[in-house]
Amino acid sequence: MQAEIISVGTELLLGQILDTNAVFLSRELASLGIGLYRRSTVGDNPQRLRQAVEEALARAELVITSGGLGPTDDDLTKETVAQVLGLSLIPDRPSLEWIQDYFAKMGRKMTENNYKQALIPEGGEALPNLHGTAPGIVVRYKEKLIICLPGPPRELKPMFHDYVSPILRTESKGVILSRVLKLCGLGESAVAEEVADLLANQTNPTLAPLASEGEVQLRLTAQANVMDEAVRLLDELEAKVRERLGEAIFAVDEETLEQVVVRLLTQRRERLAVAESCSGGLLADRITDVPGASAVFDRGVVTYSNRAKEELLGIPAAVIAREGAVSPEVAHLMAQGVRKKSATEWGVGITGIAGPGGGTEEKPVGLVYLALEGPEVSLVRELRWRGERSLIKRRTTQAALDLLRRELLKK
Amino acid sequence: MQAEIISVGTELLLGQILDTNAVFLSRELASLGIGLYRRSTVGDNPQRLRQAVEEALARAELVITSGGLGPTDDDLTKETVAQVLGLSLIPDRPSLEWIQDYFAKMGRKMTENNYKQALIPEGGEALPNLHGTAPGIVVRYKEKLIICLPGPPRELKPMFHDYVSPILRTESKGVILSRVLKLCGLGESAVAEEVADLLANQTNPTLAPLASEGEVQLRLTAQANVMDEAVRLLDELEAKVRERLGEAIFAVDEETLEQVVVRLLTQRRERLAVAESCSGGLLADRITDVPGASAVFDRGVVTYSNRAKEELLGIPAAVIAREGAVSPEVAHLMAQGVRKKSATEWGVGITGIAGPGGGTEEKPVGLVYLALEGPEVSLVRELRWRGERSLIKRRTTQAALDLLRRELLKK
Repeated sequence: MQAEIISVGTELLLGQILDTNAVFLSRELASLGIGLYRRSTVGDNPQRLRQAVEEALARAELVITSGGLGPTDDDLTKETVAQVLGLSLIPDRPSLEWIQDYFAKMGRKMTENNYKQALIPEGGEALPNLHGTAPGIVVRYKEKLIICLPGPPRELKPMFHDYVSPILRTESKGVILSRVLKLCGLGESAVAEEVADLLANQTNPTLAPLASEGEVQLRLTAQANVMDEAVRLLDELEAKVRERLGEAIFAVDEETLEQVVVRLLTQRRERLAVAESCSGGLLADRITDVPGASAVFDRGVVTYSNRAKEELLGIPAAVIAREGAVSPEVAHLMAQGVRKKSATEWGVGITGIAGPGGGTEEKPVGLVYLALEGPEVSLVRELRWRGERSLIKRRTTQAALDLLRRELLKK
Repeated sequence: MQAEIISVGTELLLGQILDTNAVFLSRELASLGIGLYRRSTVGDNPQRLRQAVEEALARAELVITSGGLGPTDDDLTKETVAQVLGLSLIPDRPSLEWIQDYFAKMGRKMTENNYKQALIPEGGEALPNLHGTAPGIVVRYKEKLIICLPGPPRELKPMFHDYVSPILRTESKGVILSRVLKLCGLGESAVAEEVADLLANQTNPTLAPLASEGEVQLRLTAQANVMDEAVRLLDELEAKVRERLGEAIFAVDEETLEQVVVRLLTQRRERLAVAESCSGGLLADRITDVPGASAVFDRGVVTYSNRAKEELLGIPAAVIAREGAVSPEVAHLMAQGVRKKSATEWGVGITGIAGPGGGTEEKPVGLVYLALEGPEVSLVRELRWRGERSLIKRRTTQAALDLLRRELLKK
């Protein structure tokens, strides 16, 4: 099956946003064994969009569009596709009800232009949008399959997983299967060095490293006629990677580091409290992103001022004055203090200099002390990061979660 | 001048890398006043690449390709362009010397396939590659301009700035200037309705709404012969938008909502403390993302458990038992408690149900109470969101920052 993707949006052609949908869809199609032959991007212009849709339909059996399904006048994808196929647009009742319900629940007035979002080409099928108002659309036309998806990645991605992927699985032949091993605590080149022999001379399955904020991903991809064979190829390669890098692998595919930590705490029926300074609440934020976190996360304190460190964590002003707020002693007392006050099994303390200001020769921007207190465990780590403020925050919380993960796995 | 971009590389179609070159080139063309009408991505396949080049040349006056100039057999861009134009490839002496020198300096042997990189279409011009080996190429053909650039961004970007941009400046006339107004507190369709007459029948300048996580952006774009004229057009349109939506506009172009809030607090020499439950630290995280936040942000508490709400904020257990942890009363006491304990001018309290579990008929997932306490101000808002946990968290913090922003602007 040959596919093409058309991304619609003037903001893309002006370079105002990165087309992450195109990358996402490309990967998904590859993993389904569907050959992607071309991606095109056009603006919110009916003539040029029409030309792109016609060309793609002439070449490919599957055409996926993203963007242009919203309520405003420059949202034209659906209208254009219907026009190319010679179909009229008719209201889809479940979609209309969903949109009405959406506005009612938000307590907002549903404006007239929102009715447009519930229109779909006759004979087409609406795909529910659980994260927004514009439904997706599937239309079959002369052996061709046209799928229109909304532009916001938050809406497009779950819609693809929930509705599009199952449809495409039944259409495609052969499989390309991917699996992602996620690692932390090692840089990309260190990971690449450990698996250098596997990276050289690879054909099927393939192995590709990819670095992203504080973690490294190894993507394993296998091609096969049937799923079982693809799975076997990936299992064999994964076993070889685990022999060398087992400890650093924290998850396979979707699971995030914070999900792993919440899962391990839940399994152990243990609870956590965190005291953050330079990470500014990001650690608490990441943990509370996990559904069910409330069962294991008691509290967080973001003690930005010294007074907050004294009042909320009981750290003596004299210690802060003597050692400095960014010191192993203060990190240790933060972890100990928040653990004691909340009576949890685990406490984390983080203090450092996120920059861009505040650094000195002795204590430069990027210097962070990370402390972990737990049952029979008392650790302090010195971390030294480079990069901008938000990256330092991100990497620090990654290190904190990884330290806790490794301790939780020990017993 | 109308332009198209063709990105070449099978790794792009497999979704293995993000096409950052396309975004970079899109922005550069916009700032040069060159209209980009389409971007296409094709793999390392000579037939499909040829078709893409032919189509682009038929539509546009300027065609820029990226990728496929390297030494290996699947690098085919130059060969394909020469074939489409009916030109033969001839060696470019300076490029050949540069490549030989490059290998000599690296202490590596120059392999045979590297000679290929020094070939350019006859009549063309080679663009030096100061960060790699493959030169860029400029070819003029029947009033058209074809520019081939190397794929690695660290080679493409400086080559564009140093050599391509000066060439295009002499070719293009006029400028395209964009400005983005950022709004919150209103949905995309409500914003569109307020400026419906400006959205209809627009030619120059243009106005386009775009929704993203809890905010709406209005992009104003003007075309003009000179910069001053473009600025004047944008100023006039911005004034019209501000007449209707002034209060909701929190920033122009790059500034984020949290940056606005930190800037206003800094200007007023006032300080803030926050107490979060369902937003889980995200509000503190966003505020502390802003450099210099430590001057205005005293502390945050993430009181996930009821006990934490009692201990850290002094909220009576009886009130939590009577009203429920998710209630206007508790939100109010959270804001009041954290403000009093930290002795700051402003206090924020947030409690709600982020889901996916924990909702009831009376208090469904997405119900959030937001409280703000300040000098002579005491507000509680009920918010009702839909969507997944992280979106509810994001929107809640957006509402909190916006509420505070509006109060800070009042006096």
